[in-house]
Amino acid sequence: MAASSSSTSFSSSSSHEGDAGSSYIECFKYSRRATLRSVVGRPDGGAGLVGDRAVVGGWVRSSAVVRARRAAARRPAVGTALVRINDGSCVADLQIVVDSALLPLDQITATGACVLVEGKIEQVEGTLPQYVVQMKVEKILHIGPVDSEKYPRSNAHSSPDLVRGYPHLAARTATVASTARVRSELVHAVHAFFQSNGFFHVNTPTITTTTATSAGNHGKMLRLTRLFSKSDNGNRITPEAVRAAIKEKTKQVEALKRSESNREALEAAEQDLQRANALSRQLEQGASAESSQDEFFHRPAYLTPCHTLHLETYACALSSVYTFSPVFQAESESLDSDRSLAERWTVDVELAFAELEDAISCAEDCVKSLCSTVSKDCSDELKFLSSNQAGDATSSVIEAAVSSPWQKIKYTEAVNTLLQVTDKTFESKLELGMPLSREHLSYLADDLYKKPVIIYDYQKQLKPFYARLKEDLKTVSAFDLVVPKVGIVACGAQKEERMDNLTSRIEESGLQVEQLEWYLDTRRHGTVKHSGFSIDLESLILFVTGLKDVRDAIPFHRTKGHAKC
Amino acid sequence: MAASSSSTSFSSSSSHEGDAGSSYIECFKYSRRATLRSVVGRPDGGAGLVGDRAVVGGWVRSSAVVRARRAAARRPAVGTALVRINDGSCVADLQIVVDSALLPLDQITATGACVLVEGKIEQVEGTLPQYVVQMKVEKILHIGPVDSEKYPRSNAHSSPDLVRGYPHLAARTATVASTARVRSELVHAVHAFFQSNGFFHVNTPTITTTTATSAGNHGKMLRLTRLFSKSDNGNRITPEAVRAAIKEKTKQVEALKRSESNREALEAAEQDLQRANALSRQLEQGASAESSQDEFFHRPAYLTPCHTLHLETYACALSSVYTFSPVFQAESESLDSDRSLAERWTVDVELAFAELEDAISCAEDCVKSLCSTVSKDCSDELKFLSSNQAGDATSSVIEAAVSSPWQKIKYTEAVNTLLQVTDKTFESKLELGMPLSREHLSYLADDLYKKPVIIYDYQKQLKPFYARLKEDLKTVSAFDLVVPKVGIVACGAQKEERMDNLTSRIEESGLQVEQLEWYLDTRRHGTVKHSGFSIDLESLILFVTGLKDVRDAIPFHRTKGHAKC
Repeated sequence: MAASSSSTSFSSSSSHEGDAGSSYIECFKYSRRATLRSVVGRPDGGAGLVGDRAVVGGWVRSSAVVRARRAAARRPAVGTALVRINDGSCVADLQIVVDSALLPLDQITATGACVLVEGKIEQVEGTLPQYVVQMKVEKILHIGPVDSEKYPRSNAHSSPDLVRGYPHLAARTATVASTARVRSELVHAVHAFFQSNGFFHVNTPTITTTTATSAGNHGKMLRLTRLFSKSDNGNRITPEAVRAAIKEKTKQVEALKRSESNREALEAAEQDLQRANALSRQLEQGASAESSQDEFFHRPAYLTPCHTLHLETYACALSSVYTFSPVFQAESESLDSDRSLAERWTVDVELAFAELEDAISCAEDCVKSLCSTVSKDCSDELKFLSSNQAGDATSSVIEAAVSSPWQKIKYTEAVNTLLQVTDKTFESKLELGMPLSREHLSYLADDLYKKPVIIYDYQKQLKPFYARLKEDLKTVSAFDLVVPKVGIVACGAQKEERMDNLTSRIEESGLQVEQLEWYLDTRRHGTVKHSGFSIDLESLILFVTGLKDVRDAIPFHRTKGHAKC
Repeated sequence: MAASSSSTSFSSSSSHEGDAGSSYIECFKYSRRATLRSVVGRPDGGAGLVGDRAVVGGWVRSSAVVRARRAAARRPAVGTALVRINDGSCVADLQIVVDSALLPLDQITATGACVLVEGKIEQVEGTLPQYVVQMKVEKILHIGPVDSEKYPRSNAHSSPDLVRGYPHLAARTATVASTARVRSELVHAVHAFFQSNGFFHVNTPTITTTTATSAGNHGKMLRLTRLFSKSDNGNRITPEAVRAAIKEKTKQVEALKRSESNREALEAAEQDLQRANALSRQLEQGASAESSQDEFFHRPAYLTPCHTLHLETYACALSSVYTFSPVFQAESESLDSDRSLAERWTVDVELAFAELEDAISCAEDCVKSLCSTVSKDCSDELKFLSSNQAGDATSSVIEAAVSSPWQKIKYTEAVNTLLQVTDKTFESKLELGMPLSREHLSYLADDLYKKPVIIYDYQKQLKPFYARLKEDLKTVSAFDLVVPKVGIVACGAQKEERMDNLTSRIEESGLQVEQLEWYLDTRRHGTVKHSGFSIDLESLILFVTGLKDVRDAIPFHRTKGHAKC
């Protein structure tokens, strides 16, 4: 099948000559075709373009061959193919009409095939047409065929598990493509919100040497070790290999010295030999040194589970900062570990000269702004996604979240409210000082208030060491944002700016103060009241799309035992 | 010094009562003070605000005590302090005038101290004042003091090495803060450019199981191993500990069964015991299993050195995509390894239905747009940074890059041009097929063309396997963007879409085809001509700021042997 799996170019580029009467639909600025968004993504569905010509490209979603004449078993179909293609620029497909005189139809009808074609936009005839316009293809510019037997059939109705197994092809399904566009819009909206509000974006590090970021997280951090583990030994430079190379290179240098013909080659060979000698010394020192010499950073390094601590240091200088960065957590012992993302993306925000209410107000404005941008600019995607999911009325949930002020209750009130519930029994136990379980949160957001809920002023043992202790010495200025259907999508806190309180809390949490000396410097020197929060992007995507599985909210999900590609 | 290092709040919040005659300068939306940008960052330097009142905050940059009366050794200074503060919102400091009647002046004059004060904006008197306005302080709302003996004196004139040693405090220096604002503006401009041009943002993964991303990179990848290495054993759950826990929990369950008093507690204890038993089985299996069972992802996983391959799969579905993500490379054996960032951020772009010229044109438009946004919106920062660096005329270099079309030459032309150079001798050797060294690139961009240069159509051995082979079978459709003073800031290629060519190139490069099966799927199924490029954000920052050391272009730099915080 080598021939069918390589590209078949019918023409190296599109030609725009001939048919001077019709105008061309403008190509996408940096590629050689008009996007489908500029054709069928228009409010009129393309009606205003009838008679215009265009080059369009995309991948085949589905197809049908009509008016086939004598399609014998061994002979290619003769007739016309109606092929629905999509280029990922919008939800709508474009139907192209291809005559078998142009190419053997089986090349263009296989789901997943790539086509680049030129043709004329025409009205769709017949009663109740599914599309306003279609394209009558006049020229095939490129076909990227598909080996149908090997191609995972991923269409809108594929099972999520099948699609998840092919993350590198999954974006060709309408569901994954729509989710990707919603995610992209959210990312744009995040940056737009913070830029228009005068925040600075800071790239806090992914690699950290601080494990004491929060109690209980340490055991879940992913560690970076030396470049190669034992199983990689085949690829690792060994002292023996270097000694052999030195012998070889010494010979070369001597040969070149004898010949005297090529000064430059001799110099290069001498430099080469010096490098090999230096490497040999390094390796020998390394072999006898402590294991910390094995570490690339000369000490244990990890993937950061949160950006708060590093971001705070920049807030204590630039005042209003945020970051959009990946965080890492290796959840391996919970029941959910195969659905718990080891790599997630969070939006972290930190505000100097700000108290808890300021952070809550910023988080509320931010999430509302993200939701309203997405519901405005991705309405087709949201409509498609909710139609695809047993009619979850996503848009009304978002609408409620955007238009009304959110419910705000203290943790103690939340517990008291839940303890008095009589119309429902909860499976998990609850008393003051215990965390609220998923069903408790769901009761508050889905059943009781029917909108996002801010729960704040938690008992101190429920929140990380850096949450600011309140006057009662029992609760801290921290909050969670709970949304219907999903649960917690953001959490935040006013940070403890008082040195004595902070060190006590670090000790209480069983963390090593020495690891946090750098963090304590911000309190030692010019401490300031500051507050921040963190939005979990994937949870927010579940909220706005109505998707149920967090693995579908990110292009390449990494979970326990799973890291494809 | 515990007292001096903790926060001293004079008032928990600002009060806006009294002095009804003057108006208040509006506070920053999510914090309790007006930004200095809204006072001294105005085009009039604040002149229009004279007489207005405001709450402002910031950290002390420098100070002087004037009109001190009888400042005896053991007694605090009496008089007035002129204190320059900055809150990171703009380059300009605000001078605040504080009388010793308000607080002991030594608390507010130490560099690095944090202040939140209320007062009135007044004209600065005297001839040739450095500032247009200053603030006469009437109320101290908060002081975060500094232990001057322990505080690393970081001001604009600190040595870069000293500042680099304190990345968590460094943003309080004008240089690091200015660089951070430029970086933030670049990030905003990246998203604005791609959003306005119809691209979708895709979060490609940081963790990858594919090592065959490009020849030569494998040995430089950072590997993720099991959560804990041997040195962490103290924290690791051992089978012995679990057995002990099971014994203990079994006792608890039996006791609860006997008492029959608390059904819920019994159920919880039984569940707990089940979990411990499951964990014990896991640990025992793990001990006897292959080492891959140790891996969290059940196979070796690494930090990605580039996003191209993953991004391509989304381009082959959504057509026009980009990502702004971190990349990782452990450069340990070169001379520059202590200055080679192990964690960098790149902007990766991929375009379906696009050829090399499309990618070059997009890269040129993008970099020009970023440069012109920064030179417009960060003019104060760029002025400050270049004044601070022996007068590098950064602005004129950017100007030249933005306003004129860039030089475009083939690699072979570049080599021929360089071989004919007579006014300069190069230290490194050059012939056709060899890489261009730093001095060669500098000659082209700095001396010959004096503007950015696109070098394209490289010999195939100089570029990764995925660059598209040209008809001569010797060169590939790939390019580098070289800018004056810095060198290469971006590189790109038209990707090989032909299956047979691609597999040959993978084998030629000595990479394992099996690892790239998923990548090959995009060519097997619906292959498309596509092109992309990658911009190195830190190199671009060096270009626009004129900074010399790449470690200063990122907030927390990670290099060989160095990962602070």
